[in-house]
Amino acid sequence: MRLYTALVHHPIRNKKGDMVTTAITNMDISDISRSSRTFGVKKYFLVSPATSQHNLVRRILGHWESDAGSMYNPDRTDAMRVATLAHSLEEAVSQIEEIEGVKPQVVVTGAQFKDTELKVSELREQLRIDKHPVLLVFGTGWGLHASLVETADARLEPIYSQADDGYNHLSVRSAVAIYLDRLTQKPL
Amino acid sequence: MRLYTALVHHPIRNKKGDMVTTAITNMDISDISRSSRTFGVKKYFLVSPATSQHNLVRRILGHWESDAGSMYNPDRTDAMRVATLAHSLEEAVSQIEEIEGVKPQVVVTGAQFKDTELKVSELREQLRIDKHPVLLVFGTGWGLHASLVETADARLEPIYSQADDGYNHLSVRSAVAIYLDRLTQKPL
Repeated sequence: MRLYTALVHHPIRNKKGDMVTTAITNMDISDISRSSRTFGVKKYFLVSPATSQHNLVRRILGHWESDAGSMYNPDRTDAMRVATLAHSLEEAVSQIEEIEGVKPQVVVTGAQFKDTELKVSELREQLRIDKHPVLLVFGTGWGLHASLVETADARLEPIYSQADDGYNHLSVRSAVAIYLDRLTQKPL
Repeated sequence: MRLYTALVHHPIRNKKGDMVTTAITNMDISDISRSSRTFGVKKYFLVSPATSQHNLVRRILGHWESDAGSMYNPDRTDAMRVATLAHSLEEAVSQIEEIEGVKPQVVVTGAQFKDTELKVSELREQLRIDKHPVLLVFGTGWGLHASLVETADARLEPIYSQADDGYNHLSVRSAVAIYLDRLTQKPL
């Protein structure tokens, strides 16, 4: 399965819809690395233009590669190896193109999407027959900025809850876990 | 659907298997509240015998009930209302019995369970026909201590990954999200 994940920290919407850059958090690194590793994702890109953030992430990932970190929790070290850095989504796409020899299909996610081009069941089938590498893109803050969404190949259907009132405000960590689980379930 | 969740901070196993008490974290409160709220869970119990921890959690939950917190992010406030405190799993069971008029079936989870009594598909069907209230119990640290697992009505099958090597080391936040999604999917 040629599936990649990306967590974008720029360009992101804030509460008012303005374009902002969010900070990379420790929990986003580790939870999403562990989900990505569990479900067979090839690389998990932490996307941020901020060089200081890259240095911070390198220190955290370096800790898990160190003797102390890997002796304390070898499974965590193993998961962290799937994580890597990119300054922009374009750079992540380029890195995947180098690995796969072809550009990935860029699929964006968003809890508030009204119109979408792709159902989870369709993407699952596509991954199953391994048609093309896929980069599944998640936002932080109040979601991916429109300028990034517009450049994507497809928007994936949101995770609809079973709550009667349509409430769906999952954390990005939970959303990644659920999408990866749904995408890797055996076909019905 | 009469489903409840609990995140247990005592009795928990540490790396060596000893019984310990873990600290309640902000991320465990908010991510699991949001997943619980999204998937229609009635109450999410934060279980800890430590009174100082209860005070901390009350302050955090109180912030989201305050004018400042609820104006900044009303959806977060809404999610946090599902969270509540208990000193022990027995106390959570008693609280559910008061609400439902009957004791819940206590179902425990653990990534490393070898033998289990209950499949996700069975529990989903049970919840669908609303047979009986269910308390779904998650551990922190290195998982629920055996002394608690032994008192439960059933152990739920682990989340098996599709990774060829059987790696499954999800965060508890991701595990809760995936179980709730699987348990509330429409029957096939």
